Amino acid sequence: MTDTTSRLDVTRLLAELSLEEKAALLDGSDFWHTQGDESRGIPAIMLTDGPHGLRKQAEGADHLGLNASVPATCFPPAAGLASSWDPALMQRVGAALGDECRAADVAVLLGPGVNMKRSPLCGRNFEYFSEDPLLAGSLATGLVTGIQNKQVGTSLKHFAANNQETDRMTIDAQVDERTLREIYLPAFEKVVTEAQPWTVMCSYNKVNGVYASENHWLLTEVLREDWGYDGLVVSDWGAVNERDKAVAAGLDLEMPSSAGVGQRRILDAVAAGTLSEESVDAAVANVLGLVAKSQSREPLEAFDVDAHHALAQEAALESAVLLKNDGGILPIATQGGAVAVIGEFARTPRFQGAGSSQVNPTRVDSALDALEIALLGKRELRFAPGFEIEADAADEALVAEAVEAARGADVALLFLGLPPSYESEGYDREHMELPAQQLALLEAVAAVNENVVVVLSNGSAVTVSGWQHRATAILEGWLLGQAGGSATAALLLGDANPSGKLAETIPVRFEDNPAVGNFPGENGVVRYGEGLLIGYRWYDAHALPVSYPFGHGLSYTSFAYSDLAVEVLDDGASPRVRVGLTVTNTGRVAGAEIVQVYVTDAEASVYRPEQELRGFARVQLEPGQSQAVAVELDARAFAFWSTAAHAWVVEGGRFGIRVGASSRDIRLTDTITLTGAEITPPLSVDSTAEQFLAHPQGGAWLRETLAETEMGAMLFDETHGRMMRAIPLVRLSRFPGAPFDEAALAEAAAQSSAQA
Amino acid sequence: MTDTTSRLDVTRLLAELSLEEKAALLDGSDFWHTQGDESRGIPAIMLTDGPHGLRKQAEGADHLGLNASVPATCFPPAAGLASSWDPALMQRVGAALGDECRAADVAVLLGPGVNMKRSPLCGRNFEYFSEDPLLAGSLATGLVTGIQNKQVGTSLKHFAANNQETDRMTIDAQVDERTLREIYLPAFEKVVTEAQPWTVMCSYNKVNGVYASENHWLLTEVLREDWGYDGLVVSDWGAVNERDKAVAAGLDLEMPSSAGVGQRRILDAVAAGTLSEESVDAAVANVLGLVAKSQSREPLEAFDVDAHHALAQEAALESAVLLKNDGGILPIATQGGAVAVIGEFARTPRFQGAGSSQVNPTRVDSALDALEIALLGKRELRFAPGFEIEADAADEALVAEAVEAARGADVALLFLGLPPSYESEGYDREHMELPAQQLALLEAVAAVNENVVVVLSNGSAVTVSGWQHRATAILEGWLLGQAGGSATAALLLGDANPSGKLAETIPVRFEDNPAVGNFPGENGVVRYGEGLLIGYRWYDAHALPVSYPFGHGLSYTSFAYSDLAVEVLDDGASPRVRVGLTVTNTGRVAGAEIVQVYVTDAEASVYRPEQELRGFARVQLEPGQSQAVAVELDARAFAFWSTAAHAWVVEGGRFGIRVGASSRDIRLTDTITLTGAEITPPLSVDSTAEQFLAHPQGGAWLRETLAETEMGAMLFDETHGRMMRAIPLVRLSRFPGAPFDEAALAEAAAQSSAQA
Repeated sequence: MTDTTSRLDVTRLLAELSLEEKAALLDGSDFWHTQGDESRGIPAIMLTDGPHGLRKQAEGADHLGLNASVPATCFPPAAGLASSWDPALMQRVGAALGDECRAADVAVLLGPGVNMKRSPLCGRNFEYFSEDPLLAGSLATGLVTGIQNKQVGTSLKHFAANNQETDRMTIDAQVDERTLREIYLPAFEKVVTEAQPWTVMCSYNKVNGVYASENHWLLTEVLREDWGYDGLVVSDWGAVNERDKAVAAGLDLEMPSSAGVGQRRILDAVAAGTLSEESVDAAVANVLGLVAKSQSREPLEAFDVDAHHALAQEAALESAVLLKNDGGILPIATQGGAVAVIGEFARTPRFQGAGSSQVNPTRVDSALDALEIALLGKRELRFAPGFEIEADAADEALVAEAVEAARGADVALLFLGLPPSYESEGYDREHMELPAQQLALLEAVAAVNENVVVVLSNGSAVTVSGWQHRATAILEGWLLGQAGGSATAALLLGDANPSGKLAETIPVRFEDNPAVGNFPGENGVVRYGEGLLIGYRWYDAHALPVSYPFGHGLSYTSFAYSDLAVEVLDDGASPRVRVGLTVTNTGRVAGAEIVQVYVTDAEASVYRPEQELRGFARVQLEPGQSQAVAVELDARAFAFWSTAAHAWVVEGGRFGIRVGASSRDIRLTDTITLTGAEITPPLSVDSTAEQFLAHPQGGAWLRETLAETEMGAMLFDETHGRMMRAIPLVRLSRFPGAPFDEAALAEAAAQSSAQA
Repeated sequence: MTDTTSRLDVTRLLAELSLEEKAALLDGSDFWHTQGDESRGIPAIMLTDGPHGLRKQAEGADHLGLNASVPATCFPPAAGLASSWDPALMQRVGAALGDECRAADVAVLLGPGVNMKRSPLCGRNFEYFSEDPLLAGSLATGLVTGIQNKQVGTSLKHFAANNQETDRMTIDAQVDERTLREIYLPAFEKVVTEAQPWTVMCSYNKVNGVYASENHWLLTEVLREDWGYDGLVVSDWGAVNERDKAVAAGLDLEMPSSAGVGQRRILDAVAAGTLSEESVDAAVANVLGLVAKSQSREPLEAFDVDAHHALAQEAALESAVLLKNDGGILPIATQGGAVAVIGEFARTPRFQGAGSSQVNPTRVDSALDALEIALLGKRELRFAPGFEIEADAADEALVAEAVEAARGADVALLFLGLPPSYESEGYDREHMELPAQQLALLEAVAAVNENVVVVLSNGSAVTVSGWQHRATAILEGWLLGQAGGSATAALLLGDANPSGKLAETIPVRFEDNPAVGNFPGENGVVRYGEGLLIGYRWYDAHALPVSYPFGHGLSYTSFAYSDLAVEVLDDGASPRVRVGLTVTNTGRVAGAEIVQVYVTDAEASVYRPEQELRGFARVQLEPGQSQAVAVELDARAFAFWSTAAHAWVVEGGRFGIRVGASSRDIRLTDTITLTGAEITPPLSVDSTAEQFLAHPQGGAWLRETLAETEMGAMLFDETHGRMMRAIPLVRLSRFPGAPFDEAALAEAAAQSSAQA
């Protein structure tokens, strides 16, 4: 896109605008629009909620913007989409979202959210992708690319460490830097570096004591300096605490309008000399840059409602995960005896979560309707709602009716899930269980029919260990968007083959989860005590059994893995490794397999998770078909964030390559050796004898100095030497009889380090 | 003890001494002595290692002091003693230690160590008591009282958060304050407030970024101001980093001698004005105070070696824990077929750990000798060593010999344990397993004899889950001191009845332990990510099965619990509760039972462990005898450390009282309700609508202000209200259409808080 006369001249405007005008531009003009200036030719542009559909406030709706919005296609929320492991699908969904924004004159769609699923209780998990940063980052990159290819902006959120709803506006997330760099930031980093989102949205919470909105380390050092981001940073709605500090930290745009409060704070701070005008200019340049980008958007009369619904259905088909299918009870044949469809969710689908992302769908498919149409004239279909979704207690009459429907039926399709009130932006879940009345219904139905298929609708993991023995098959539907009902019917009937794999572990019990005792924190602080060990990293480290592991998902066909060939393309400090293999569809129907590549590093000088997802590929195969799959691993697949070096470091040594159908269904393994980076830590007076002895020059000096001395005899003593060698030499230099003093030691350390 | 003319006049000396002389007094004179000044009448006093026996350097030994020491009684190390749950026994052991110090002219015995067992891998766990602070503190209080009653000083160590040996001289233990106050400090607090140890020894490590030796918060604010300590703080040997900062923080005495380095730093800092002379005076006063105290010690010609050995045996009898005793295979009858005694540890007992606490025992009993004498002429005894203790691989000939000894014997007593090289001050263990060759021996022996009794010698927990099905009984001996061998024989033969209970959990697997991933840290930092959840608190929170729970221990008799009567003596902010019950010996031999009282608090506003040990009692009962037991619980049994209030707070509500024979063998329960302290948090502009609505005045103001407004409609809305009510009102005040501004809000908050 070339510059045209209609485009803003940011440089000229910066020179012309007064400080008051600039400060005004850094605030919204209302709930959803930036500040425009007609005389300057600066339009007000609209940012509006998403991200799995457009939530644009209808005209005349309330200002706070949580009521009726214009109809839009409701795609599956991230919790569903993530199970597709399909960045190409994300891109197509993104393109559709972009078109809907174009049709609605929306400049920026507020999403996607790539926060990690630290606790299964986080009320907003349904808006997030995964417990794994690579998977979340890859999928969000696809979505952002798809939207922005339409010249519609995105807002990567919530930056960062916003992993709970409890006290989200004020909580201080205390996370060590390595954990941030390796777990909580990489999804953001990937999207920023690979898809350049027009905007990044800072989160409400504090990160290590400083509000994200005022966190210079986060918004400037990491985001702009380390990752090279040059777009705009916008506040989450109401996330600004002290506007002047936010500008200094790198927060460009405050939303919604602060009605002049922010502008006043900025002007006062500049006047007081505590905020530089350069900081204000930088923020204004980013606001104007965003407005300029949005001017390239081509308007669209209307989007194709039917095509988008079809795409939503396609996405839903890939988003469901077949957890269990004993005896191949699924798919359901279109001929046979009665099929009982039980559960209110079959008729009244739950397809998205509550809060700012709630879309007003263009239409809604129910599984019941779709099954009725598909089976009409072929099999008897009996429906019973079984329960009221938000009721506290079981309705005995509804249960009795459901039992009657199930009795004598060939199969009972039981639609269970979490009521909408269980999962929302703004608060966290209290437990991981399905409502007791639904489980009672399952017991009652299973007592009269041994062919029970459970279909789940839930935005975050529920435990299944207490009841799954009652179900012959389980289809985990997550939240599948407006076409989820028809997609579910297609999967149950075998018109489509399930291919989704879990983007989050389903633990056996709530008590198994990594954040127990550390979630949601107290007195304004939440400690990320489990460090790197969230999701499968935790369950692996503690060797805990899980109900279904990360990456798990069944198919109506089967796949064989073979011919692993791991090639080290570059062996140095920034290695590249190519993992090749062959996947074969060994079953009788077409299907897609998601091949996962995990890397292990057992020999590291720092603690490393047992295995980490470092690549994946989705392969669609006809029966009997084989396909070569190649996954390239770059330096980051092997590196850890070194707190000492303040950098990513690939440490030489052996690495395991594990290729699997899930994190706990590893099919092929190999080991490679990488030279990695040379790491020679410098010596200081605080170095131990052990560290000196490991150093060529330092070791020689120490051996010579201690030769024939009493301290030397102790230090090299068989029994006590190890303990002595762990003492910093400066401490020993002061011990009675030490043959060196601190000055001599400092000299030796400096000379050794210089020579290394 | 009244002041005599021979006692130091501290006040007069402080006035007379020059700054140089004072600074000199703050340093040791050699490895083990303080600085004396003959002209001033200040003697040099000796501080020397312990604490489960005296380790006084022999004349002419090396300066560093890790070689031969004078013979002393080696009592069981803390890991053993802790299983007695017997503060009265601790006091008797302490008295004996005091006498040995008197006989050796030692002023201060360097111990006990009350650090928590955070990880089973800590190499020095054998020197520590427990994973529970109340138990550790109670036992150490007994020991300190016993020693100091002899006018010999103690040194409570290692203060604080020294829970690993890896990088112990430099590691930064990052622990939140609530965890410090509730887990890592209470054992110190109990000893300081109840037994007034003459000295407290600061640890090597950093605590939250500051060396313990320079940590003013730790050494002054907590120790002296909060706990009222008025004794001396001494450095661990070599723990001083910057001497002037240490003095300012409250570290009085540097040990060992720094050969003038410390004195110079102090003088320079006072000259530069960065260290006050008052700080120096305070430290000198504490040094002189210690010297003065030591002058009250009555010399002793010699201690009673035989009596102390007998006491060491008595202590060992209480220290062993009978983990398992299927079919009552133990005790071994003195009549019957052959008894096979297998394992080098039967002949060469492992009875203490390595490092600065290693005692040169006055004598050593072996179990083999004791069993031979006891069974002489009654049963055939066959001995086979089975393995070499420190060998890497199995010796097939030794295994074959052991198998032959076991074959056809009535019972095989198999003495297994950790080689000395596995456990030492100075480094941590690498795993929790017994040596593979010993387990292979167990397999081989169990293959020919189904009556295998395993006797363990280990300073910290080993996993038993992989092999315990091979053992009919397991006697966990920990490290039992010099009389452990004869004590073990007495227990095996039923001459004594086991009564010890576990002071640390034996987990099923290493991977179950709370510090996985967070131990021993990296790059100089260890994060206490599990927070409060160490030991049984962790296993309970994660509902993990354990091999043997905290508090478990079998007896040759059985006990019944009855008649629980829980009486609330004081119901207010500082409650007192009396727990009464009856314990009955329902078996056929005399025995001792350790009754444990756990408190639960399910309703708290902060996270609380599922249950916490708050009291215990040891009861000795003849067969058929009953005894009333009373345990008093004070405020701390119900309080938590409130980070917000920066104080201990008893929050009103229901508390559970659980009385049990172990943490997972609860026999009696009751529930009480306490009024506790009134907690009304003040309102501010950052308070949420929810917090305002919970406040009488604030709620009234908000309801009135929002009445009939659009924001009010949103806030009280059924669907979205909860999310809105969690937003700080100051943020909402800037939203478009807000019916109040920040000033009005601040006014309302201030008025409400004032009226509350």
